[in-house]
Amino acid sequence: MKGFKTLTPIQEAQRVFIAAVTHTPSEVFVPTPQAVGLYAARDVASPVDVPPFDRAAFDGYAVRSIDTLGASRGNPIMLRVVGKALPGAEFGGAVGRGEAVEIATGAPLPAGADAVVPYEEAARRGDHIEVYKPVPQFYYVSRRGEDIAAGEVVLKRGRKIKPWDIGVLASIGIKEVPVYKVTAGLISTGNELVELDEAPPPPAKIINSTRHVITALLRDFGVEVHYLGIVPDDEEAIYRAVSDAVRRFDIVITTGGVSVGEPDHVVRAVARLSPEVLIHGIAARPGRPNSAAAVRGKPIVMLSGFPVASIVGFEVFAKPAILKMVGAKEEPLPVVKAVLTRRVTTPINVRSFVRVRVYRRDGKLYAEPLAVTGSGILSTLTKGNGLLIIPENREGYDEGDEVEVILLGPIND
Amino acid sequence: MKGFKTLTPIQEAQRVFIAAVTHTPSEVFVPTPQAVGLYAARDVASPVDVPPFDRAAFDGYAVRSIDTLGASRGNPIMLRVVGKALPGAEFGGAVGRGEAVEIATGAPLPAGADAVVPYEEAARRGDHIEVYKPVPQFYYVSRRGEDIAAGEVVLKRGRKIKPWDIGVLASIGIKEVPVYKVTAGLISTGNELVELDEAPPPPAKIINSTRHVITALLRDFGVEVHYLGIVPDDEEAIYRAVSDAVRRFDIVITTGGVSVGEPDHVVRAVARLSPEVLIHGIAARPGRPNSAAAVRGKPIVMLSGFPVASIVGFEVFAKPAILKMVGAKEEPLPVVKAVLTRRVTTPINVRSFVRVRVYRRDGKLYAEPLAVTGSGILSTLTKGNGLLIIPENREGYDEGDEVEVILLGPIND
Repeated sequence: MKGFKTLTPIQEAQRVFIAAVTHTPSEVFVPTPQAVGLYAARDVASPVDVPPFDRAAFDGYAVRSIDTLGASRGNPIMLRVVGKALPGAEFGGAVGRGEAVEIATGAPLPAGADAVVPYEEAARRGDHIEVYKPVPQFYYVSRRGEDIAAGEVVLKRGRKIKPWDIGVLASIGIKEVPVYKVTAGLISTGNELVELDEAPPPPAKIINSTRHVITALLRDFGVEVHYLGIVPDDEEAIYRAVSDAVRRFDIVITTGGVSVGEPDHVVRAVARLSPEVLIHGIAARPGRPNSAAAVRGKPIVMLSGFPVASIVGFEVFAKPAILKMVGAKEEPLPVVKAVLTRRVTTPINVRSFVRVRVYRRDGKLYAEPLAVTGSGILSTLTKGNGLLIIPENREGYDEGDEVEVILLGPIND
Repeated sequence: MKGFKTLTPIQEAQRVFIAAVTHTPSEVFVPTPQAVGLYAARDVASPVDVPPFDRAAFDGYAVRSIDTLGASRGNPIMLRVVGKALPGAEFGGAVGRGEAVEIATGAPLPAGADAVVPYEEAARRGDHIEVYKPVPQFYYVSRRGEDIAAGEVVLKRGRKIKPWDIGVLASIGIKEVPVYKVTAGLISTGNELVELDEAPPPPAKIINSTRHVITALLRDFGVEVHYLGIVPDDEEAIYRAVSDAVRRFDIVITTGGVSVGEPDHVVRAVARLSPEVLIHGIAARPGRPNSAAAVRGKPIVMLSGFPVASIVGFEVFAKPAILKMVGAKEEPLPVVKAVLTRRVTTPINVRSFVRVRVYRRDGKLYAEPLAVTGSGILSTLTKGNGLLIIPENREGYDEGDEVEVILLGPIND
């Protein structure tokens, strides 16, 4: 087809493109509670032991284990309760021979004690307790450092920081975390575009919606998005915008101007930047015009102007480029098996991305394919809750075939 | 056990608690590009047709289909090309009898034309084209409204708004979206707590890390978190804090003060608020102390002070309460089957949440169980990338059993 003589298979396009992405974003320290969703820029080790001291792992009595030797039902050991240790307070005294201290879970073990007898295993008699069996050293005691030892790595480079990681980092007193600061320059192109705040658009104009889709997708990866406006369909203007952006940002993303028709200025403009790699179009449906280049190791991702096709291009090029730059693996996706309700035919040697509506009936999952063609088929985005990827070596699936579907939202009954 | 005579099974606890959550958060309008991750507060219908006009679905020539009647290889129809229609520009003229207009994908169909002959199906001869077969009406034309008709619902109440939803909403010129504004009052309790900015903590004190875990988990649901500070382990102080918070916020979350030991002030304080429902402790491991109440239809979730146990309590009580208030279903989770590398024994009649490390070897997935006990086992959060939920009717799993694991992060090789 005109303008796309050789459509690169997706796997090959990704391999060549990603190999050329060698840039590393800068590292910044952010306050730990704000680090969720960002990628660790280096290994972080614990500065302290967790627990920081031996502490009770159960409510009961702190004792000297040696005092319980020989205890039995018939011959209980009597220990005198000399105080009470609570979490958050240092117990001033110590547990001497023949003594016990009542203790709550989490409280530091008083000096002298080396075990905890749970309430259930002792009987209170006034200011004494009876213990019926010997307890080993460190019985119901959380040892200092047993959870995390000082020096242990608690956050690996490239890890996408989760809420629970924040819990660990805060627990060990780490106030700031080294993360990658990834910046994206986002350039929209297209004479037909107006911005959302100008809606309703004048005749023959359309709203620049792809900008907002891509911004939201980028933010999901913690990327700081710099929107650089709508550049007219003019090779020189696009060249200037991209060449400036590739100096300033870690990744440059353009939308539009990569169609099969005439206004294909973006790829020509990027070609003038002496890219190490330039891929023009991929064997994807939708998403054929999506293109990518690497300039001095930085990724330039040239997306279709159509929202649906641009999402495919984002998945194929932008996502793996970002993950490579931050040293991360892709987060797992929810996948289910479902029965196809209608035959889907797709071209061979092309990877097809088919939106489906997954629903449950009589306990079984079904996937109803939505529009297959038309990269502007917006309604499939709101009607669908799943994505069926049909590989290059297949011409589709038959009705009744069991297929694997990536779930993009909850399943409806 | 002391203080937890009857541990409510999780399913029963959820049923009773969620039934009592009847409060609806307020509805606010936010700019569409900022609505990602929030929940739609009502159905949103399209104000316009998409496409807004009949437009070319392919690059080629806009023609009057009636003119192509009778065309064949042997007897081609000649049409005079009278201009060029591009996206973003209104084509001033019209296509008259015997005429064609060159057209790019996305351009409005010029007046008079009702079909597009793709480049591939015509031959250019100077200022004429030859057409070799008749084309039906609307051939390669995207009809006005064929994707989305004016009045069609494009966003359903309760939907968690995705990047692609923003694309659809922006495309149809919707500048603001009605979403639920869910506010949470977060109260930490515990005399042993100091805040992260006071790290390193003085002796016998620990850092309030659970606050940050819960804040991050809440933000994942678009909740606006109001942190109300550390309240001492004192029933009266907690009563005042919770009773004030339940008036001001949609959900109140406390951490700490629900242990099996003595400082169990939170549940007693909440009981004084005349809750419709009060659940004290659940049959979960870890996470037994997690408790919940509903006061005038609003959820009060009383979480364990330990980060790991608090996450279980969040999943059991806070998440379904938020989803109910915004009319949403849970988003799908990535689940894989893996072979257990070691036997796990868990108590019967208790739902156990076991962190596992999922890895791939020789193309097969394995799950290595990490610590089973100790709600403070922080390191399992950083070492694990999966969660194995062992139901109440099982006493664990054997080594070699195939189990379903919820993936919380990428799989390591």
